[in-house]
Amino acid sequence: MEVMKVLHMNGGMGDASYANNSLVQRKVITMTKPITENAITQLYYSALPKSLVIADLGCSSGPNTLFVVSELIKVVDQLRRKSGHDQSPEYQVFLNDLPGNDFNTIFKSLPSFQKKMSNQLGAGAGPCFFTGVPGSFYGRLFPTKTLHFVHSSYSLHWLSKVPEMVESNKGNIYMAHTSPPSVLRAYHAQFQADFSMFLKCRAEELVLGGRMVLTFLGRRSEDPSSKECCYIWELLAIVLNEMVSKGLIEEEKMDSFNIPHYTPSPSEVKSEVLKEGSFFIDYLEVSEVNWSVNNTSCEINSSDDQFCDGGYNVANCMRAVAEPLLVSHFGDAIIEEVFKRYREILSDRISKENTRFFNVIVSLIKKE
Amino acid sequence: MEVMKVLHMNGGMGDASYANNSLVQRKVITMTKPITENAITQLYYSALPKSLVIADLGCSSGPNTLFVVSELIKVVDQLRRKSGHDQSPEYQVFLNDLPGNDFNTIFKSLPSFQKKMSNQLGAGAGPCFFTGVPGSFYGRLFPTKTLHFVHSSYSLHWLSKVPEMVESNKGNIYMAHTSPPSVLRAYHAQFQADFSMFLKCRAEELVLGGRMVLTFLGRRSEDPSSKECCYIWELLAIVLNEMVSKGLIEEEKMDSFNIPHYTPSPSEVKSEVLKEGSFFIDYLEVSEVNWSVNNTSCEINSSDDQFCDGGYNVANCMRAVAEPLLVSHFGDAIIEEVFKRYREILSDRISKENTRFFNVIVSLIKKE
Repeated sequence: MEVMKVLHMNGGMGDASYANNSLVQRKVITMTKPITENAITQLYYSALPKSLVIADLGCSSGPNTLFVVSELIKVVDQLRRKSGHDQSPEYQVFLNDLPGNDFNTIFKSLPSFQKKMSNQLGAGAGPCFFTGVPGSFYGRLFPTKTLHFVHSSYSLHWLSKVPEMVESNKGNIYMAHTSPPSVLRAYHAQFQADFSMFLKCRAEELVLGGRMVLTFLGRRSEDPSSKECCYIWELLAIVLNEMVSKGLIEEEKMDSFNIPHYTPSPSEVKSEVLKEGSFFIDYLEVSEVNWSVNNTSCEINSSDDQFCDGGYNVANCMRAVAEPLLVSHFGDAIIEEVFKRYREILSDRISKENTRFFNVIVSLIKKE
Repeated sequence: MEVMKVLHMNGGMGDASYANNSLVQRKVITMTKPITENAITQLYYSALPKSLVIADLGCSSGPNTLFVVSELIKVVDQLRRKSGHDQSPEYQVFLNDLPGNDFNTIFKSLPSFQKKMSNQLGAGAGPCFFTGVPGSFYGRLFPTKTLHFVHSSYSLHWLSKVPEMVESNKGNIYMAHTSPPSVLRAYHAQFQADFSMFLKCRAEELVLGGRMVLTFLGRRSEDPSSKECCYIWELLAIVLNEMVSKGLIEEEKMDSFNIPHYTPSPSEVKSEVLKEGSFFIDYLEVSEVNWSVNNTSCEINSSDDQFCDGGYNVANCMRAVAEPLLVSHFGDAIIEEVFKRYREILSDRISKENTRFFNVIVSLIKKE
């Protein structure tokens, strides 16, 4: 309940953790692997550091948490073998998320993970030192010029707080076609402030030539209220509005609820990077992943219809993200009903439409 | 229960945390403050690092966890002001304990702690970056030559495992007058192996001129089974033996239970440091603290007789340390009875004898 209180006070992600650890995220990590590999390869050849310092920002706590970093280390170790360097770098890994993240679970899993990784890497690979860093990445987290590589996946679309709005976003909970232009501007301004602060902090922390690979949930379109990025929240808004009309949620409560989230276009990401000025853009792309990627679990659980229901899976994935925000605003009495309805509406739309998430991936190099 | 399983498997501290956060420990930290201050002062003047990296090994999770480090940072900031350096170092703090330690609680307390500390330090002080490092300090925890200052209080008397014994330590649970000489030798050998491994690892991690201040629960006497260090465990052994004779504990179980602990003398500490060879000894002393220092809580809780009972307080303090070991070996059914009896015997002895803990404090400097 402490978490909820903080969330409520901040109006942002507060004390929770950033990323979710869904199959969607794993799919995205796999899709961005060539970009990440390319970045760490260039870094390795240009810097050949004795001690390679990697930070994963918004690491969350789940099956994906240690996956990215272990993949990065495997790539570096292959490069080392290929290039005939006997001397392996030592690896220092900083796992960051908000102070409310479940670091205990990550830490308890580390001894067996490190053993497994050490076996996979074999003799000659340098030791890997893992540490946890609690705090918001919209502020400084590390001393000056101490990082070589920053990775962040599915976290940077979370804003530091709900944007301040001069008009009500009535009937909506995120940017939507029916949102007043001032609401869309407020969301964009908050994204600009947050992302430029992020870039400024990382620019101070990265060494010259240091690299970042960032993945946002975003959009291809230049329209900030495009269905590409807003539809999933619009469906949740439909559920909440239905519950308002049935008297299950107070209208006033609904009117004041907005998600601290922004799904940028590639040009918006590019624009902030250029404005901030500390980084070269090495690569920028948009990719797509189907909402129902979670249905791969059908193969494992084919006897259970529930798991083959795309609505069930996407609703669960969204629930991990949205539940703390909903509970802190509406209380927990309505939650089961909200997600029952949300699951139904998601199942319906997935069966009828080609519903996709869009990911903006950017690979950056720290300038002089 | 996972913790207990691991403890049982390792026969050591396993997955638990090292230090306890008792008033005794706070008292010890306060007593060693002049030594710690002297060491960090010398380090600051000799190194003037842009980024000062401090590690607290065996930090535990409680009111003392952030206390030591914040005191160190305050000292450095006073030195900076006094010596007219406008440019403050940045502080990077690594809090280490075993993977089963409750890092979540430390991390959740950090935002308010950092705010308070920032207010206390005032303008001009560098930022403090806190990180958690899960793992045993009897292995490498940090990359080569990255630490400036290592602090460890009331943790290094925990061995990595129960020593391997060729004879039974029948009737005892730690070194005692009635222990066979081979048992005393096995305990000493385990201490030597563990502490020299600790020194070797830290020697690799510290920069040249880097400093360590280590506090052990120890003894003044050269007799390893001296009452100075063994009495508190002997009283627990009396309780367990009583319970064996009443059929509450199996005799076989009692015979195979030993505490993974070693309370060295100053000369034993010195001998290992000289043998390992990476450190100069700047300072070495033994100090004493009364078992019933915990009775200061009487001032706060004077209406409650329970809190004024030295036995109650020392038993609670020992319970935090011993309970996981007892539970993993004997199961949890006997615990309440053990500590009820232990409390009684402690109360009795405290009222009749001058019972004290002895602390060995050593301040070390990393050689070339």
